[in-house]
Amino acid sequence: MVNLTPNPSFSLTIRIQLPNTAGTLAPVIQAIAAAGGNIGQIDLIEQNRKLVLRDITVDASSTEHAETIVNAVKALAEIKVLDVYDRTFNLHRGGKISVQGKISLKNQGDLAMAYTPGVGRVCTAIAENPDEVYALTIKSNTVAIVTDGSAVLGLGNLGAEGALPVMEGKAMLFKNFADVDAFPICLATQDTDQIVETVKNIAPVFGGINLEDISAPRCFEIEARLQKELDIPIFHDDQHGTAIVSLAALFNALKLVKKSLEETRIVINGAGAAGVAIARLLRKAGAGTILMCDSRGILSTSRSDLNEQKKEFAMTQSGLLADALMGADVFMGVSVPGVVTPEMVKSMATDPIVFAMANPIPEIQPELIGGDVAVMATGRSDYPNQINNVLAFPGIFRGALDCRAKAMTTSMYLEAAAAIASLVKPSDLDREHIIPSVFDERVVPTVAAAVQHAARADGVASS
Amino acid sequence: MVNLTPNPSFSLTIRIQLPNTAGTLAPVIQAIAAAGGNIGQIDLIEQNRKLVLRDITVDASSTEHAETIVNAVKALAEIKVLDVYDRTFNLHRGGKISVQGKISLKNQGDLAMAYTPGVGRVCTAIAENPDEVYALTIKSNTVAIVTDGSAVLGLGNLGAEGALPVMEGKAMLFKNFADVDAFPICLATQDTDQIVETVKNIAPVFGGINLEDISAPRCFEIEARLQKELDIPIFHDDQHGTAIVSLAALFNALKLVKKSLEETRIVINGAGAAGVAIARLLRKAGAGTILMCDSRGILSTSRSDLNEQKKEFAMTQSGLLADALMGADVFMGVSVPGVVTPEMVKSMATDPIVFAMANPIPEIQPELIGGDVAVMATGRSDYPNQINNVLAFPGIFRGALDCRAKAMTTSMYLEAAAAIASLVKPSDLDREHIIPSVFDERVVPTVAAAVQHAARADGVASS
Repeated sequence: MVNLTPNPSFSLTIRIQLPNTAGTLAPVIQAIAAAGGNIGQIDLIEQNRKLVLRDITVDASSTEHAETIVNAVKALAEIKVLDVYDRTFNLHRGGKISVQGKISLKNQGDLAMAYTPGVGRVCTAIAENPDEVYALTIKSNTVAIVTDGSAVLGLGNLGAEGALPVMEGKAMLFKNFADVDAFPICLATQDTDQIVETVKNIAPVFGGINLEDISAPRCFEIEARLQKELDIPIFHDDQHGTAIVSLAALFNALKLVKKSLEETRIVINGAGAAGVAIARLLRKAGAGTILMCDSRGILSTSRSDLNEQKKEFAMTQSGLLADALMGADVFMGVSVPGVVTPEMVKSMATDPIVFAMANPIPEIQPELIGGDVAVMATGRSDYPNQINNVLAFPGIFRGALDCRAKAMTTSMYLEAAAAIASLVKPSDLDREHIIPSVFDERVVPTVAAAVQHAARADGVASS
Repeated sequence: MVNLTPNPSFSLTIRIQLPNTAGTLAPVIQAIAAAGGNIGQIDLIEQNRKLVLRDITVDASSTEHAETIVNAVKALAEIKVLDVYDRTFNLHRGGKISVQGKISLKNQGDLAMAYTPGVGRVCTAIAENPDEVYALTIKSNTVAIVTDGSAVLGLGNLGAEGALPVMEGKAMLFKNFADVDAFPICLATQDTDQIVETVKNIAPVFGGINLEDISAPRCFEIEARLQKELDIPIFHDDQHGTAIVSLAALFNALKLVKKSLEETRIVINGAGAAGVAIARLLRKAGAGTILMCDSRGILSTSRSDLNEQKKEFAMTQSGLLADALMGADVFMGVSVPGVVTPEMVKSMATDPIVFAMANPIPEIQPELIGGDVAVMATGRSDYPNQINNVLAFPGIFRGALDCRAKAMTTSMYLEAAAAIASLVKPSDLDREHIIPSVFDERVVPTVAAAVQHAARADGVASS
């Protein structure tokens, strides 16, 4: 496995005890640095005339690396390691979201208005005029994050419980970035019909459904059936979130190399949820040639193993990924680590654009091809140009909820992509800055406005 | 319809403009009082030398009554009514709960720990050891409030959307009283099999299920099947919440009249969810004679129209409610307004106990029988002795979650009832104070401890 940069996802806090004399901290810092750890905060916990207790926060690159670092500290004379906390695990303990009341309930009057008997009139008003559910309940701002745990991150089929930490994290992002109230629904079934039925049954509370980490090809059918049968927007983030942000990044990357989308030859590696959605959105955006590959190579009309979605993109050309990449302008990977070699990148057209978005380890490490690409992007936050769905889904839902969209449409996605791309000013655009930061506060309102505009133009807005 | 006391569920704020001279407010107050309104807060909004704007908060007893009050103010010379707000509706606008993140997401490091890639290790840990879902996610403190909207309060079948304001209110109460995170699940189906399937499918996220406002007799089957098939506690509040609090109140009422539960003759009117649950719990508590009635009278073995649950309580005696009440010690009504007359109460045994719990209008108004009963209780907050489920469900779930109960058991309910009753000290016990206030801060911890104790004794606790 390639060596990765230390990052906060393997962050630990080491509590050490050291003599309270000058010069004892330096060897600790040195040992951690020598072991490759990134030192963050250093806290003084307590001290007396003899001893000092300190907490040192260190980012490692893997669990094994974290152990190496701790052992390096333990090996020092006079230093005692008292405790090691895994900061990531600590942060997840007890879960990451809570449900809060918006109103104080301090006396009988509060109860009588918020609950029985006062609430009865509110219920009756909704029963008499169903549209009022949007005005008088949480529905207008609430999204279900639905998963069956079949394709959790890049980790595979971890099941409903194993998926929950991701869904909670997503709910936090929804709140933090777009003030959307989102709640995780992790399903104990992976059967398409049951998933569709269950989501339909729980839909009354929600103003939108965000499907998440559901494996292909079931995800396509589930999304399509739900959108057909429900009058709230359905959005499979692994498909469309990735497609929208990739397209936004591609818009800007192409500006840098002065190529048009229509003329570029694009290779997509990975024909799952994300790959198919990227290909579909690229087509709608006017992309010229798209060559899709899966683990067996180019999706070719000569192959007999293609599912419905893969057939959509089958070309007469056949061969392996390496064949597809020869002379290609753009590589977009949503597949697995390490499948692209420096040689393959060298075989691409001039000014190649490489989006190696496999998570957490890209199709090719940026370090290996630094000088050979015009623009490089990954899914990681520790390299420039992170293709991060957080740029899309909060604003997408903010916009859809704000206009009570009955559905999601392709124009909403295309306008969202253009909106994201537009936030990088021409003067700021360079090969290491093709998309805005997820912490850029303009992103959500800009995307939301674009989405709302498209929803109205498409006639799916209902308020 | 009987005249009701003004209460905060029909609370309105009237904004008036009046001349800024002494003595102009008094006639307004007088007019409101003469119209029967209860005046609450009076705010000064703004004033100049000529005019004053004031907001007057008034409780009415019904929507019509509220209109009468407003018209009385409008009829006054020199007073202008600028606006009338329905405080209850205003309070429900946009819903009453929100989903909040527990962790700040201010930088890349936060994201990398709370979301990808850091969250991946947490997911894997749960997939490898499913029990960890209780430690590392919201499950251990999260309850689903599930309804199909078929029996919303006393209002009937309002459907999923019409039920949502109640479920949100319940979620607020869970948080406010017991720090439980509860989320409303309003189902678009009223089919028993579909409800059971749907709840099973969404169960992974939840540490418990609170069933709510599901009509009898389906509620019995749904609860039983879910408890059989899931390893988290299932609690139908309309049944057991009501039964627990009624029993608690009865324990104390019987102390006052010095009768034993074994010797009393109890009439329950209403053989739906609450009535059946009360009868079952009374039996387990050792009650002597229980006569149950439905709208057709006593559940008698001679009747051929009884469902399974009603058959459980069929007696050889037959007749109407009036017949049942003759010589009875206790009346417990969970039925409809006005079905008990003062004459019926007079026909009861000495020191009769009357719990008229129909909501919002009791089986008999307390004013009509003030002197003829030893103890009177209702479901209303504006009379003494409110039989309010809020005394039970928060503590029940707090206790069940705290010990990771796999199920709810009858002993948990019996101990909860005893715990609630125990909070009224002998010296405080009188006919207008047989149960603690819902704002008594001892209630939840006391109930939770009793429930946890019973769960451990029953072997259903798993932590």
